[in-house]
This record gives sequence, C-alpha cells and structure tokens, in this order.
Amino acid sequence: MAPLSLAEALAEVSLDIDTRLDSLISVPDDARAPLYRAMRHAAIGGGKRLRPLLVMATARLFAVDRDCVGRAGMAIECVHVYSLIHDDLPAMDNDDMRRGKPTVHKAFDEATAILAGDCLHALAFEILSDPATHADPFVRSELVLDLARAAGPAGMAGGQAMDLEAEKCTFDLPTVTRLQAMKTGALIACSVEAGAILGKLPPEGRTGLRGYARDLGLAFQIADDILDVEGDEAAVGKKLHKDAGAGKETFLSLLGLPRAREQARMLVDQAIAHLKPYGAEADLLREIARFTLERDR
Amino acid sequence: MAPLSLAEALAEVSLDIDTRLDSLISVPDDARAPLYRAMRHAAIGGGKRLRPLLVMATARLFAVDRDCVGRAGMAIECVHVYSLIHDDLPAMDNDDMRRGKPTVHKAFDEATAILAGDCLHALAFEILSDPATHADPFVRSELVLDLARAAGPAGMAGGQAMDLEAEKCTFDLPTVTRLQAMKTGALIACSVEAGAILGKLPPEGRTGLRGYARDLGLAFQIADDILDVEGDEAAVGKKLHKDAGAGKETFLSLLGLPRAREQARMLVDQAIAHLKPYGAEADLLREIARFTLERDR
Repeated sequence: MAPLSLAEALAEVSLDIDTRLDSLISVPDDARAPLYRAMRHAAIGGGKRLRPLLVMATARLFAVDRDCVGRAGMAIECVHVYSLIHDDLPAMDNDDMRRGKPTVHKAFDEATAILAGDCLHALAFEILSDPATHADPFVRSELVLDLARAAGPAGMAGGQAMDLEAEKCTFDLPTVTRLQAMKTGALIACSVEAGAILGKLPPEGRTGLRGYARDLGLAFQIADDILDVEGDEAAVGKKLHKDAGAGKETFLSLLGLPRAREQARMLVDQAIAHLKPYGAEADLLREIARFTLERDR
Repeated sequence: MAPLSLAEALAEVSLDIDTRLDSLISVPDDARAPLYRAMRHAAIGGGKRLRPLLVMATARLFAVDRDCVGRAGMAIECVHVYSLIHDDLPAMDNDDMRRGKPTVHKAFDEATAILAGDCLHALAFEILSDPATHADPFVRSELVLDLARAAGPAGMAGGQAMDLEAEKCTFDLPTVTRLQAMKTGALIACSVEAGAILGKLPPEGRTGLRGYARDLGLAFQIADDILDVEGDEAAVGKKLHKDAGAGKETFLSLLGLPRAREQARMLVDQAIAHLKPYGAEADLLREIARFTLERDR
C-alpha cells in the first residue's frame, strides 16, 4: 500500500465518514424529521474522526476492503457522537457548545437530544451487524461484541458514571487513570481492535496493538486535560477550564503541568514501541501517536 | 415438548429473566455502584416480561436450547427497560412511577437514569453477540441486526420521537397506527423474529409469524390505550389518563371505546389465524394473543 501522510489520511477519513453518514441519515418526510436533523447536526461535519482514523490505520497492516473499514469506523464514530450528545445534556455536563456549534439540546430540545443519541447508539450496531460490513458473520459478531463492551458499563458509559461521582469525592491517580481508560480509552482501544478484527488477526497476535491503543488512549486524555487548561476555546470549539471549576481531579491537577507533559510524551514513546513488530505499514499509527501531543483541538 | 400454560410460562420466564439479570448486573465496589444499582432498580423484579415470553413461545416451535432463548429474551428486555427509563425522564414523558416503583431519575438522579439506560442498551448487544448466546455467529449477527433495527430510528426510538410530535399536531388513524407499530410493535415483532432466528427458520418461512407479531403488537397497543382510560393505577403501577391530558390522538380517541375493543378483538383473531400452519406447539403463542385483551396491567 502506498504511504499515506497523517494529513492525507485525516482528510480522506473525514470526507469518507461525512459521505457515509450523509447517506445513512437521510431525513424522512414524516414526524421524525427533527430527530433525523438532530442526528445529522451532531454527527456530520465536525470532529477529529480519530476513531475511524484508527480503524483505518490499523486495517492498513492487513489487506482489508476499504468499505468494511469505512463502515466499521462510522459505527464507532456513531457511538462516540451519541456519547457526546448525552454527556452535553443539562443533567450531565450541561454544555452549550460542541465542535463550534450549539449542542443538540440547545439547537433542538432535550427530548430530541436524548433520542438522537439513542438512535445513533442503535445505528452503530445495525451498521456492524449488516452483511455489508463484512461477509463473514464471525467478524461482524466480534465487531459488535467489542464495541458493545467498550460502550457499556465496563467501558465508556461506566467511565462517564465515575466522572459524575468525581465531583463528589477525591480520586487518586490510579482511580483517575482507570476512569479515563474507561471513559475515553475503551472506544480508542475498540477502534484499533476493530482494525485487527477486520484483518482477521487472531487475539493472541493483538498484544502489541492493544498496548499501543492503551498507551495512546491515556496520552490522548492527558493531552485533553492540558488543552482544557491551555487551549483556545475558538479552536477547541467547546467550553474549557471546566474540570478545575467542577473541582474534579485530573491528570493535570494530580501531576502538575510539567509532569503531565512528560507523562504524555513517555506514553507516546511507549505506544510507538509497541509497534516494533511492524514496518513502514504502521507509520500512520506512529504518526497518530505523535500527533496526540501536538493537536490544538 | 410438554404443553405449558400461559401462567406457568409467565412464571418460568419471570424467574429466569430475573435470575439472569441478577447475575449479569452485579454491583461493583467502585464509583459505578449507583449506576449499577439504578440498572438493577429498573430491570429486576417487575414488568410483564412479554418480550422474553414471546421469544420463548416462538422458540418452542423449533428445538432451541433453553439458555439461548433466555439470553436472547434478556437482551430484548434490556432494550425495553432502557426505553422505559429514557421515556420516563422529565424531558420526555416526565413520569414519577413505573411498575409500582419510583422511576429511575426519581430514585437516583437524571444523569444516572440517562447512563443506566445507555448501559442497558449496550448490554443488550453485548449479550446477543456473545458466543454464549449461540454457537453460530450468523445467528448472533442476525439477532443483533434485527434488534438494532427494531430499537433505532426506524423502530422504537423513531416511534417515540413521533409520539413527542403527537402533542404538537393531530395525527390521523394511519399515522397513529404507524407510530405504534414503530414504538411498541417493532420490539414485539423483534421478539418473535428472535425466536425464529434461533430456530434457524429461513426468512421466507417467517411470513405467518411476522403477521402474528404485527397484529399482536397493534392489539397490545389498543389494549394499552384502553387500560390508560379504564385501568386501575395501583394494578398498572404507573400514572394513567395521560394521553387525553396531553391532547394526544390514540386508537381510543380516534375510534371510540366500542370500536377500539372490537378492533383489538379482530386483531387477536387475525394474529391467531396467522398461526394456522402450526399445531399444538403454537398454543402458547395463541394464549398470549388472547391474554392481550384480558390483562389488567
């Protein structure tokens, strides 16, 4: 496969995901129109598309059909977007802006936001279990199992529940690490795992990729904490400085800025070291890891 | 298979589902404890368990392993319970009581209710895609696809979105029928379909069962509308007389009580007629259809 720079890959994935979501979520001519418009508002035309990018970059290690990769990436992105819609709700983080636009409950209403999230959640599993995603039902079933675990109480949603408790009590570093591994890490790990499942890499061969995904997920979260303190609201597209305001412990509050930066750098090096068995075909995964430290949104 | 009365089947399914959910949702010793307690509050010890009963009654037409049937029923029930939690939220139907207990956002809080619903939603797909549900990955993948479609914007959640719009405009009988076929009918149809998928009945052989499920779903909803007007709040376990208060059109408001009753009876007869190809092994499905008209909750 021809080498692909990170910038090229990001552009390709963004366009691909937007095109797919645009055709998947077409507004019907009935009373569900606001629901579909809300789903489109949240899902199309925004976001870093990091998760579909990771599916694609991992699948490049193997010979995987482009359409399978795109559909799996879209499914994981649907779960990510649903979680953002629900996290932004007044009862949760109560955010007004996301990706530079009003959040769904602001642009529509709370009921529509709850249902739009629920629909994207269901769509993710509809996409993965559709024979169009992969001809082998074992692959489809594994993709579903991995995403469902990553999304549920032992993963993303469980991490968000811990995060809500974080405002009420003081978490130590191991607890914050576990919380973030669930809240953000699980879906990042699932994206890399999806690439390996599509590539039919047996579980015993996934140790390196799993190590990469774990370290990348933590580095990503530390970088996010740093952005929350140092970032530019216009570039990030959402309200910042929220963690300190809510009295939540983060990597930054527990480690301080210099040690947090050092920790993130070390995790990125570790993530890249996990890719040692792979040659140039893993360069995109390496670039993604490095980019974690440089991003401004 | 030995005949099973409806009362015996209901008791067996209730106990089986409660036992399964009890062991699936065990409260962890960390900050997620409230989340898990909320899931248990909503999912365990209540409800008619109509959907798992339909999976079981349909699977009786074929030789299906009991454990597969129980797991598939539990998954569909998880989606049903998640939808009740979200529908009860203040931004949606704003209900304080459900199944004779405070709703989840009343017993816990709104954020926990949203997340508990999300977790049950994810768990449903984790259960279905787990090899423990069926050894054949094609069966698992089909179960997931069918449930995801039934739950999403073309099914249950789409129906709920239409229902929210129903307060703002006046729906005619075909629109109310479509709304209810999505909101309640889709998951009922999915339960029967799951039994057929587990029984490895090919799609072209499912016409009768699909007709049964469609008519049963509508009869069930008309009976629900009648209960909303005539039922006893203590027996039903939730607030009644809501539809009229919200100015929503229902089968009852559009048809009037005598014609609604007649319509429900006719649908039950039709549902039973669809089972003509089956002998005594379908008696439980027939009993379920008749029970629809007699239930008091």
